[in-house]
Amino acid sequence: MSDTYAALLNKVREKRPLVHHITNYVTVNDCANITLAIGASPVMADAIGEAADIAAISGAVVLNMGTLNENTIPSMIAAGKSANEKGVPVVFDPVGAGASVLRNDTAARLINDVKLSVLRGNISEIRFIAGLSSQTKGVDASDGDIADADSAGQTAKMLAQKLKCIVVVSGAVDTISDGNKIVLVENGHPMLGNQTGTGCMCSSLIGSFCGAARDEAFAAAVTAMICMGIAGELAFEKAGQLGSGSFRAALHDAVSRMDAAMFTKQAKYHEA
Amino acid sequence: MSDTYAALLNKVREKRPLVHHITNYVTVNDCANITLAIGASPVMADAIGEAADIAAISGAVVLNMGTLNENTIPSMIAAGKSANEKGVPVVFDPVGAGASVLRNDTAARLINDVKLSVLRGNISEIRFIAGLSSQTKGVDASDGDIADADSAGQTAKMLAQKLKCIVVVSGAVDTISDGNKIVLVENGHPMLGNQTGTGCMCSSLIGSFCGAARDEAFAAAVTAMICMGIAGELAFEKAGQLGSGSFRAALHDAVSRMDAAMFTKQAKYHEA
Amino acid sequence: MSDTYAALLNKVREKRPLVHHITNYVTVNDCANITLAIGASPVMADAIGEAADIAAISGAVVLNMGTLNENTIPSMIAAGKSANEKGVPVVFDPVGAGASVLRNDTAARLINDVKLSVLRGNISEIRFIAGLSSQTKGVDASDGDIADADSAGQTAKMLAQKLKCIVVVSGAVDTISDGNKIVLVENGHPMLGNQTGTGCMCSSLIGSFCGAARDEAFAAAVTAMICMGIAGELAFEKAGQLGSGSFRAALHDAVSRMDAAMFTKQAKYHEA
Repeated sequence: MSDTYAALLNKVREKRPLVHHITNYVTVNDCANITLAIGASPVMADAIGEAADIAAISGAVVLNMGTLNENTIPSMIAAGKSANEKGVPVVFDPVGAGASVLRNDTAARLINDVKLSVLRGNISEIRFIAGLSSQTKGVDASDGDIADADSAGQTAKMLAQKLKCIVVVSGAVDTISDGNKIVLVENGHPMLGNQTGTGCMCSSLIGSFCGAARDEAFAAAVTAMICMGIAGELAFEKAGQLGSGSFRAALHDAVSRMDAAMFTKQAKYHEA
Repeated sequence: MSDTYAALLNKVREKRPLVHHITNYVTVNDCANITLAIGASPVMADAIGEAADIAAISGAVVLNMGTLNENTIPSMIAAGKSANEKGVPVVFDPVGAGASVLRNDTAARLINDVKLSVLRGNISEIRFIAGLSSQTKGVDASDGDIADADSAGQTAKMLAQKLKCIVVVSGAVDTISDGNKIVLVENGHPMLGNQTGTGCMCSSLIGSFCGAARDEAFAAAVTAMICMGIAGELAFEKAGQLGSGSFRAALHDAVSRMDAAMFTKQAKYHEA
Repeated sequence: MSDTYAALLNKVREKRPLVHHITNYVTVNDCANITLAIGASPVMADAIGEAADIAAISGAVVLNMGTLNENTIPSMIAAGKSANEKGVPVVFDPVGAGASVLRNDTAARLINDVKLSVLRGNISEIRFIAGLSSQTKGVDASDGDIADADSAGQTAKMLAQKLKCIVVVSGAVDTISDGNKIVLVENGHPMLGNQTGTGCMCSSLIGSFCGAARDEAFAAAVTAMICMGIAGELAFEKAGQLGSGSFRAALHDAVSRMDAAMFTKQAKYHEA
């Protein structure tokens, strides 16, 4: 399997898929740069007048509701539907689901109106969407929900079956399920949690790999989470003692230099 | 007093308050990362459909009018009022006050409708709000106003009395007043002025400390200005000769590694 | 001529012109920081309630349609018209022209309603605006259009005559024409293409130099492209082996430290 995952690294750089993002203005620059770093081509376009058009010509669409508003919500729906019509994979990042009625309603509407390929969130967001009790605190996972993370695998699997898509729960260990099997990724470093946008960047990487291999959404999700995890480890080694600004640059460095050899050597994952 | 200030560094990391920002899209990423670096949890949410809800569950609210528009102005007012109802401290950063009628009107409206805990701006912005003549040039303090900065302390004190809040005037020397005493912070480095967002980041730090110690707005403001000043000095030492990109990373590094010992050793401030 | 160009470096730092941007939220932070790095003063203001006011007091206006929407399009037009009335130079960056009807219509409308000083884009965008066949793929130049780049000089010259403005075609070699002469700039490095916002930053540099020397738009455009090209070379030397995050910091470093001596030593350009 590791070869399947590592092969996606070459594929994304060969195909250079266009990855359409409707995303938040907090971490959008990191999302664009990480998409370029992995070898894909980002485009950010959230006007209702072009969202569907751009989605239709893209290799993948990433919808991230981090700073959703009345203008971008309809654009996310339009882009998602357009992508569905063309068979373009859609990745959804329900940032802050559970934290406000607007976010809850938007997540529900998006899941209802758009067929997702991959749903990625932290345990609080995923538990909320799965209809389980959650304690979302802003946009970070709550301690109470993390303590319950042993059940992340079952939650992901159940939700994957319900939504008929890949579900990714990010955390100290990342959990990925297609509704049948569950893969746990152990790569990563706690400093990733002290950097804004590492979750959003995971969604961009998933979109990049989905864009390179439309029918391999599960492999795309696993590969993306391993990539970011390894990058976090390498960034900590190189810059962890320096602080958060140097860690950030090193994280982008590591993704831009990630290759199949490094990936295969460092990947730590197993089926649950 | 230094112990009071240094103690806030531990408190923010223990409590990890949620700091709600409605801020500009230019420096929002820096604001999120600096909030994480000091140990708080940022959330950016400017839709009118959720601004009040998010403010109500936050430890502090930071309103920054750097790229204000017809959608975000009502959201800032709604978030501010909601915060007031719940006793959540509000920090206001009147970016560019004096530079356009829209900014002037918005600053006036916000100050009228929302009870502030802390108002932070450069000397041009604060003079404008105090009703004094100012020469705002875009979003940077004008040379004419800086030349008049000897009077910053009296301006801050008078405005603090009028608005019944803490007033911070950023500059080569930072001035903080509660309407009674005036503290001058001498930490800092001129390179901070050649980096976008250092003022906005100060407001985020003030919000972070206010979120950790709701009743200590004055100490929060002083601590934040000292922190950014020390970080500027450390960043200059480490990366000043390299240029503005390395300085920026080093600035984030320094805030993320700031601790009570470093703070106490480097802090330079005194009552006027 | 090199002296003319190098002289602009001193001029922008002496005059510190205010450069008003209405630009995209993806790369806006890089645009602000690069404007500061070269010695100008950025202001970002896209609300219809102030766009014209801010343009009127600025040294130059940069309009970038990277994340255009129904709110910012009228603001771009208003800022452009206001600048025209006051004789303030306008730089237009037609990001993604050719990629959607909304972008195509907006570019056409802007060119029709606003007198430009400088138009800067990649070959796909410029070919589209020139009415030639192009194959825009998102916001990056398409391979087919790049292969045809030998004709970039003639395209730029023809379009410059038609629009009566300076036209810049960014690429491995940058092409600048005033409708009469054509200058080719050979500075640069391929890593610039793997970093989001390097094109946008070129437009910000052009705006900065235009703001310092209102009647020297051609020299401003050439100087800006040489500056970014040299910065790319220096950044590659220093950080190219490290990866994209370190390259980015080094790019900002290089622009902030660029001086007339470095510029004169490294500049590689010639008339076609």
